Amino acid sequence: MTFANVGTLDAVPGRRDELVAILARRSPELEQAGCLLYEVGVSEDSPDTVFVAELWTSAAAHEASLGLESVQASIQEARPLLSGRMGGFSFDVVGSPLRD
Amino acid sequence: MTFANVGTLDAVPGRRDELVAILARRSPELEQAGCLLYEVGVSEDSPDTVFVAELWTSAAAHEASLGLESVQASIQEARPLLSGRMGGFSFDVVGSPLRD
Repeated sequence: MTFANVGTLDAVPGRRDELVAILARRSPELEQAGCLLYEVGVSEDSPDTVFVAELWTSAAAHEASLGLESVQASIQEARPLLSGRMGGFSFDVVGSPLRD
Repeated sequence: MTFANVGTLDAVPGRRDELVAILARRSPELEQAGCLLYEVGVSEDSPDTVFVAELWTSAAAHEASLGLESVQASIQEARPLLSGRMGGFSFDVVGSPLRD
């Protein structure tokens, strides 16, 4: 069942765009791990926040991806840029008005 | 610029699946209005909550879609099913690790 994970990561003031660069860096292994969509964004309403919206082939695929060497390296690289404030939610996709 | 809107809608207890059915009902006019993705979901951790994750060609396309007759009709239909508790966030997409 397609699994969605959406979240916010707050950066240390002034370092949001460095965090965006890490999260949006081309990573073909995510696709191999079952990532169907991974959008990274920002909002002028919240200048230190990075937003992500992800779709995965399953919750297990998402969970397993966190163990990938490249993902662990990115987490280590991002750590000093994070304020510690995070939010978001995850869910199981059950339908879409765009398809039958 | 691609615009993302993600959110939660809490249903009156016991009526979540009716709300899912309204939100996931096939709606080709959303695509015509610039909707690129519209995933509807649920989570066992929050049994009265419906989740949505949407991508649009622009924030303006999303805003304009709220004025469509079919969307207004769905909002009216959904209203009695809503508890009034809602959450979520929106953002401008700036990148993805899945594409260059």
